[in-house]
Amino acid sequence: MKKLELVGKKPGQPYTTIDVRGVQIGGDNFVVMAGPCAVEEKNVMAQIAENVVKAGGKVLRGGAFKPRTNPYSFQGYGEPGLKLLKEISNIFNIPIVSEVVDVRDIDLIAHYVDILQIGARNMQNFPLLIEAGKTNKPVLLKKGMTATIFDVLHAAEYILLEGNNSVMICERGIRTFETYTRNTLDLSAVAALKTLTHLPVIVDPSHSTGRTELVGPMMKAALAVGADGIIVEVHSNPENALCDGDQSLSLNDFDSTMQELKKMAKVLEKKL
Amino acid sequence: MKKLELVGKKPGQPYTTIDVRGVQIGGDNFVVMAGPCAVEEKNVMAQIAENVVKAGGKVLRGGAFKPRTNPYSFQGYGEPGLKLLKEISNIFNIPIVSEVVDVRDIDLIAHYVDILQIGARNMQNFPLLIEAGKTNKPVLLKKGMTATIFDVLHAAEYILLEGNNSVMICERGIRTFETYTRNTLDLSAVAALKTLTHLPVIVDPSHSTGRTELVGPMMKAALAVGADGIIVEVHSNPENALCDGDQSLSLNDFDSTMQELKKMAKVLEKKL
Amino acid sequence: MKKLELVGKKPGQPYTTIDVRGVQIGGDNFVVMAGPCAVEEKNVMAQIAENVVKAGGKVLRGGAFKPRTNPYSFQGYGEPGLKLLKEISNIFNIPIVSEVVDVRDIDLIAHYVDILQIGARNMQNFPLLIEAGKTNKPVLLKKGMTATIFDVLHAAEYILLEGNNSVMICERGIRTFETYTRNTLDLSAVAALKTLTHLPVIVDPSHSTGRTELVGPMMKAALAVGADGIIVEVHSNPENALCDGDQSLSLNDFDSTMQELKKMAKVLEKKL
Amino acid sequence: MKKLELVGKKPGQPYTTIDVRGVQIGGDNFVVMAGPCAVEEKNVMAQIAENVVKAGGKVLRGGAFKPRTNPYSFQGYGEPGLKLLKEISNIFNIPIVSEVVDVRDIDLIAHYVDILQIGARNMQNFPLLIEAGKTNKPVLLKKGMTATIFDVLHAAEYILLEGNNSVMICERGIRTFETYTRNTLDLSAVAALKTLTHLPVIVDPSHSTGRTELVGPMMKAALAVGADGIIVEVHSNPENALCDGDQSLSLNDFDSTMQELKKMAKVLEKKL
Repeated sequence: MKKLELVGKKPGQPYTTIDVRGVQIGGDNFVVMAGPCAVEEKNVMAQIAENVVKAGGKVLRGGAFKPRTNPYSFQGYGEPGLKLLKEISNIFNIPIVSEVVDVRDIDLIAHYVDILQIGARNMQNFPLLIEAGKTNKPVLLKKGMTATIFDVLHAAEYILLEGNNSVMICERGIRTFETYTRNTLDLSAVAALKTLTHLPVIVDPSHSTGRTELVGPMMKAALAVGADGIIVEVHSNPENALCDGDQSLSLNDFDSTMQELKKMAKVLEKKL
Repeated sequence: MKKLELVGKKPGQPYTTIDVRGVQIGGDNFVVMAGPCAVEEKNVMAQIAENVVKAGGKVLRGGAFKPRTNPYSFQGYGEPGLKLLKEISNIFNIPIVSEVVDVRDIDLIAHYVDILQIGARNMQNFPLLIEAGKTNKPVLLKKGMTATIFDVLHAAEYILLEGNNSVMICERGIRTFETYTRNTLDLSAVAALKTLTHLPVIVDPSHSTGRTELVGPMMKAALAVGADGIIVEVHSNPENALCDGDQSLSLNDFDSTMQELKKMAKVLEKKL
Repeated sequence: MKKLELVGKKPGQPYTTIDVRGVQIGGDNFVVMAGPCAVEEKNVMAQIAENVVKAGGKVLRGGAFKPRTNPYSFQGYGEPGLKLLKEISNIFNIPIVSEVVDVRDIDLIAHYVDILQIGARNMQNFPLLIEAGKTNKPVLLKKGMTATIFDVLHAAEYILLEGNNSVMICERGIRTFETYTRNTLDLSAVAALKTLTHLPVIVDPSHSTGRTELVGPMMKAALAVGADGIIVEVHSNPENALCDGDQSLSLNDFDSTMQELKKMAKVLEKKL
Repeated sequence: MKKLELVGKKPGQPYTTIDVRGVQIGGDNFVVMAGPCAVEEKNVMAQIAENVVKAGGKVLRGGAFKPRTNPYSFQGYGEPGLKLLKEISNIFNIPIVSEVVDVRDIDLIAHYVDILQIGARNMQNFPLLIEAGKTNKPVLLKKGMTATIFDVLHAAEYILLEGNNSVMICERGIRTFETYTRNTLDLSAVAALKTLTHLPVIVDPSHSTGRTELVGPMMKAALAVGADGIIVEVHSNPENALCDGDQSLSLNDFDSTMQELKKMAKVLEKKL
């Protein structure tokens, strides 16, 4: 049986670089995507976006449709959230990434965002993968909490089979017996993916650790291990975030970690 | 925040019984659902159905839309498979269960089947849960390979919130470090679910173990631990099954295990 | 490389039966070992032992040397505990099992007990396995919380290689991401072990689940899945137990579950 | 109940630095321990030691007593191996670390080595921890494959309670469902340990990944995440290593990764 015909890295094959409104992802670039868990009020979004850009972030994140374990949890602002995210994107000239949860919403979301995110819970939602493969939008595909390295590569193959080659694979932590952290961020999976696929590999240090004080060290480790970028939760006021405040960096902490990353990037010959 | 308002078992609350075309699921019944992994040719289906009914099986299973990790794997016969399954269902007067993978297909599938199955990979496909909640069909909700007991209860809550109370929760094994079995069937989760929810709890000993020789013992253990039923893969010719032959019981093995289950059911005061 | 020469079950090879002071373990017997987590005061021990015997228990358990994660936790009464356990054993004519933690204590403990227990944390304490193999005492070898089926078989091989063939393998739960239960009792590992080795296989439903209300259902499931016995924590007053009160059955609950087991054993053709 | 009185990091408490024959471990040092899995022939050991020193390694590793899952696997050269290791240590003036497996061998091994290693399988071998605590040798305590962050901290507490404060905690990978790597190296546990304890934290990228091509990236990630050092398997001829050849770096690969680490250490303000 055929497998990984499209996502597998053949000997000598160069790594894929994806262009998102002028931002290069892959190759010798290290891209930082940052923003709040959920899209917030306009003035909050503006403050966050301004600081993300100033610190060197290249993509703004923010959820409008939030998949939540508990049906009584806040589910996001929906389309009005996307509109606001787009407005902020235009003001600060920064591409945006947001999650698509429902296969029926793909066209709507693709209309607003620059990168379609497929979340960990939907990594094997095959109709969603196929429809994302039919759009011309780059896709950030999160590895499931229980998915193996080969599972996520097969999921990516579904997207490429439809003709969309602009896929980034995102490691966001797996479920293990350890309870101190929310999940276990598997950086050896990142190193392994860089040997197995030509697609860019992104790391999410926020959802994986679930603890603010561990986010900075894992951002640095992600750069060192060879990831092509990170997607990180940042908020101007983590205590009052609509969601995920416990794992969001403050603007100050984000800025100071970015300074460290820049110094490291230089000796690791990565553009940041 | 509210949680498990609808699926949680309140003190003294009786267990829910679901009627599926005259078959009672829940209460003091132990229901056996059996059939091939994927819908097969008509004569094969007829032979399997006949034997399932004769041995005491009460629901026929068979996949028409198969979610597969590898995009190059057989994906099922689609609607023609459902039509055939329905035909067999009518001939042998046995209700049928089949999986829905795509939220856009729910009405189509609900038109043919008696029980809608939501698979492990889609346990947190929230739009699919919500739409299943809007139908009047009983739902067999499989616990994800990485889902906790509370995760699947929250997923069931999504369905009940839409007004559909006929939900069965199915334990089908979780991912652990053990590699000898395909997954680890967690029967203590079944015992726990029986204390936490009033909904019927079903066990899948086939996908969890992935090994024919372990299916029979786990069927018996499922009955003993207090499950309300099992869903098991059975085939007239496991070596030539369209999929999952390694974990399918032969008709003979199914029949002899059913004889043992019947003896056990008597002393456990369960109807089988 | 050689592997599992001694513990592996060859085609047609009969299952091993171990005689412990007249109690047969293995074959068509289902043996129930029960008692408190730690050896308690004499009058408590006598009350428990009397009830265990009356309900059909065949071996009395009780820890004198307790391996504890936290160095500040109660570590057991040591040799005085063993002396008391032996006294009770003589009064009620019931063999006893207790854990050896330190390789230097093996002779001391073997002097008192009928079965040497090697705990989950010591499953790969190879010097301990080797020294246990040099005694003539039956060994109850617990599978580690993180051990695979083949790991525990290899550990048993260490013991048999020294000439001691009287080894029972005990499944006591593995670490998984599920947090509702203390560990995940893997009954499919029990079914698998019965196909892989001729040694008796015992189940511990107490340490694995960590919850009293789940112990009874898992005792029944252990019998149904084909285990050769169980080792279960029982206490006359679980609330005041020296340790593990949360997972200890009361004498009444133990007795009523034993009644159910006896009915099941009859139809499963097991002696209890 | 008391817990982690001694290993816990109190607010403002400085990190512990351990002096091993003049090599400083902890604080702003990043120490590299390297060498073969098992002690090899003298000329092989000399070649490896020479290159380890030249590349900047500060401690030489090599196993003389090897705990092996399979009793038929090579178990190490025993005391002659330790003698040879000591001889090499003197020639190249480099401290040595080797594993103690049997509590009865501690004095013997402490006679030869500079650091006592307690392996992952023995992390909860409490007599071994206690006896190691009675020596005056620094201890490298490996976190078990199934141990949580708090489990290993409690194990370290056992050692400190006996009066030995020179303990390093080593993350060497945990068991998860991922099968591509041997274990999953949990670098977020390293970041967490640095916030929870004042003891130095070491990373083992060899046993955790089990794959040569992943060792270099994980060495860099370990430095970036804030570890105090690494212990890595290096061999002059990995294909012919007595054990663990699949995960051993060649001398060339070790040397080139050390060059990268040195550049990184400078911007991270670590001494290497």
